[in-house]
Amino acid sequence: MSAFLQQCRHLLGSDHVLETAQDMAPYLNDWRGRHTGSALAVLRPASVEQVAALVRACAEHAVPIVPQGGNTGLVLGSVPDSSGRAVVLSLGRLKRIRKIDVANRTMTVDAGCILAEIQQAAAAEGCLFPLSLASEGSCTIGGNLSSNAGGTAVLRYGNTRELCLGLEVVTPQGDIWDGLRGLRKDNTGYDLRDLYIGAEGTLGIITGAVLKLYPQPQASITALAAMDSPEQALKLLKLMQDYCGASLTGFELMSRICLALVAQQFPALPQPFAAGHGQYVLLELSSNESEQHAVALLERAIGAALDGAIISDAVVATSVAQSQSLWQLREHIPLAQAKAGKNIKHDISLPVSRIPEFIATTAPLLEQAFPACQLVCFGHLGDGNLHFNVAPPEGVGHDAFLANQAAVNRLVHDSVQRFGGSISAEHGIGALKRDDLAHYKSPVELALMRSIKAALDPQGIMNPGKIL
Amino acid sequence: MSAFLQQCRHLLGSDHVLETAQDMAPYLNDWRGRHTGSALAVLRPASVEQVAALVRACAEHAVPIVPQGGNTGLVLGSVPDSSGRAVVLSLGRLKRIRKIDVANRTMTVDAGCILAEIQQAAAAEGCLFPLSLASEGSCTIGGNLSSNAGGTAVLRYGNTRELCLGLEVVTPQGDIWDGLRGLRKDNTGYDLRDLYIGAEGTLGIITGAVLKLYPQPQASITALAAMDSPEQALKLLKLMQDYCGASLTGFELMSRICLALVAQQFPALPQPFAAGHGQYVLLELSSNESEQHAVALLERAIGAALDGAIISDAVVATSVAQSQSLWQLREHIPLAQAKAGKNIKHDISLPVSRIPEFIATTAPLLEQAFPACQLVCFGHLGDGNLHFNVAPPEGVGHDAFLANQAAVNRLVHDSVQRFGGSISAEHGIGALKRDDLAHYKSPVELALMRSIKAALDPQGIMNPGKIL
Repeated sequence: MSAFLQQCRHLLGSDHVLETAQDMAPYLNDWRGRHTGSALAVLRPASVEQVAALVRACAEHAVPIVPQGGNTGLVLGSVPDSSGRAVVLSLGRLKRIRKIDVANRTMTVDAGCILAEIQQAAAAEGCLFPLSLASEGSCTIGGNLSSNAGGTAVLRYGNTRELCLGLEVVTPQGDIWDGLRGLRKDNTGYDLRDLYIGAEGTLGIITGAVLKLYPQPQASITALAAMDSPEQALKLLKLMQDYCGASLTGFELMSRICLALVAQQFPALPQPFAAGHGQYVLLELSSNESEQHAVALLERAIGAALDGAIISDAVVATSVAQSQSLWQLREHIPLAQAKAGKNIKHDISLPVSRIPEFIATTAPLLEQAFPACQLVCFGHLGDGNLHFNVAPPEGVGHDAFLANQAAVNRLVHDSVQRFGGSISAEHGIGALKRDDLAHYKSPVELALMRSIKAALDPQGIMNPGKIL
Repeated sequence: MSAFLQQCRHLLGSDHVLETAQDMAPYLNDWRGRHTGSALAVLRPASVEQVAALVRACAEHAVPIVPQGGNTGLVLGSVPDSSGRAVVLSLGRLKRIRKIDVANRTMTVDAGCILAEIQQAAAAEGCLFPLSLASEGSCTIGGNLSSNAGGTAVLRYGNTRELCLGLEVVTPQGDIWDGLRGLRKDNTGYDLRDLYIGAEGTLGIITGAVLKLYPQPQASITALAAMDSPEQALKLLKLMQDYCGASLTGFELMSRICLALVAQQFPALPQPFAAGHGQYVLLELSSNESEQHAVALLERAIGAALDGAIISDAVVATSVAQSQSLWQLREHIPLAQAKAGKNIKHDISLPVSRIPEFIATTAPLLEQAFPACQLVCFGHLGDGNLHFNVAPPEGVGHDAFLANQAAVNRLVHDSVQRFGGSISAEHGIGALKRDDLAHYKSPVELALMRSIKAALDPQGIMNPGKIL
């Protein structure tokens, strides 16, 4: 390996081949602190050509490669295993916004650009790049693409997949595929772009992308509606979409226990309703016309929902500050959960129509198997994505309860499977859910995935142990 | 082969194994009449299980398979070659709408469903399936998916790819992959769905799909704007998107010569402007609120475009009949071209921002190489897709001019390549553009496509000679 490392130093300069435990630590630690990997070195190339040259060196010496962006992933997809055989290839120095083409509504970026910087660069040109996630201040677009990140704007704008027109990828052989096309229509052969998106770095390394931009809305208005049940939340979704079409840009479900938890852990945050309700929905409407238009539309739709007894109460934010304070309730749910102690998380999706029945069926199964456990269920109802988290019963220690993790996961995921859902809606598979994938996917689908992996990465050096 | 055919008759019943020239003719003729293929037989299965059994029989006897839907493709993708070795596998009997789930906004269909019937079934439930093409009365959704069809609604709703959530596919080994998921978010491994979409039946046979539905708009309003140049059309596009966002559902460019040709061939169609203008744009706005809302928004945007001297004139349709007569102008361009005689067609796309420069550069090159040839340029400017057709000079016979086809294609496609465009925006590659694909794609991209083809169809029996 010393010849290999010598070659890396020659390619990058020794400053960018990190080899000490201290230098490598930030690249080896999982974001949630569940795992610390080990690596031969951390490589920090500054250009696509350097990435390609490094991959060729790795291929020659059969060194496994773990590509890494902001290392904010939630499924152990961007950290190496404990063998110490792999290198981490950090894209962090590829951080140039290459081009903004307002008339084409596209932006061409390096994979290492931070998501928030991309959002800001778009806004500076009067455009919107809609992808938005909790980690946007530190995650990179290469990681977003490799994990097909979701977030709160999927309802209107789709996942990261739908926000990308073209890619630049370094293959496991060290070739550069220039697929940086800014085209809305292009039917010339197989869709390689979508194959690399969501492949978590197991088929190649994304080094650049052409992103879609949208017109910046003139105004966004928020409301919080209260109702009894998930069935009513679903009826509200249909009504809002019928009334508002693409103007509906947010639809977040939160159960009673979620807001109670926020009230308990963050008593300073204002709670809009005096009485408790079974469920709440945070609504966001955006208008390309005017704030007045958005308010009128939202009030008309909410009026219809009240008239139809779909909801029992609602508040519409009348200022940006009020709007932010409603969003804060939603954003503080995971923070309140973290303050309250550890819990068992699930990032699942379902056909939207089946969510009420899924909750009604799965909650009693949990209650039966783990008496008095607390279900903290919230999420992006508009795209069928629930964060279906299970906390210990009152008085039971969190660590003791976490001993049930595998059994709780299995119960929830079995139910997801029965309802035609997905065990990973937006976080991916990584190393964390690899065994679950093998358990829940059909043999036909697994065989198809394995043959694609073998065809594109026959040496098996790209992010081994992830997904498959 | 007689054992093989015997096996097919056993599987389907002899009525559904067509072997005479007369019975097979409709399945062997290209839609545009440019080619008649030859086949061992035409197989007409009625279920996905029958498709799988046939594919296993074909694999066993190494019989090539040409999957076929409505056989309306434009690139010789769904007809066999002249060898007579292949079978045509028609999906026409798989025509069941399996399920409509309004609350999930999805419809699950067999691959052989006719596009227009899918649109109607969605409308009957108050929903919109937005895919719309000239051949919608006879093309099938399986063909739309296999060719990733485009059409006039791509600006707002995307290509067929963006309208599909899940697939059912029979692999070249005769296995059934059940990927019929109705999920908006699902990050569990490689994106097989998008690999099969647009693969033109060369990787497997699509037998079923889960399609996305949208709320049916309350109203659609049409206008025709006149301007001097493609630059101004591009400025109008930006203005319309900024003002109207997702309410802008159509933006079709037509040059002066296009409307002149329609006037000449269809003198009964009303022409809205007395004087000729350089370019025209057909605009469509849709609203989920009301017709009044759509009209007010359209008038405000058009007013701004007139004030800014981006356009020189405009008419807004004030009735459904007027709206239809404006769309008729657009739809009669290809018909007028067909009546005027043969011409050399190009289905290209470009970054939207580069279209004016592309036209300004390419038209003089054509004029220089083929003096007095006539450029009939129109298309979906909003998604960068031009139908860039070249007709003979006045007085030159069409057949004589068509002798230049290869040279004209090369000139136009070379220019497309220089501007970062695509030589097939929405029609695909088939057998017709296979050599062009090999010429214009990078060796890296071709190698990636070939290794995927070899991995999934190692026997090479799926639609051989198409794409690669």
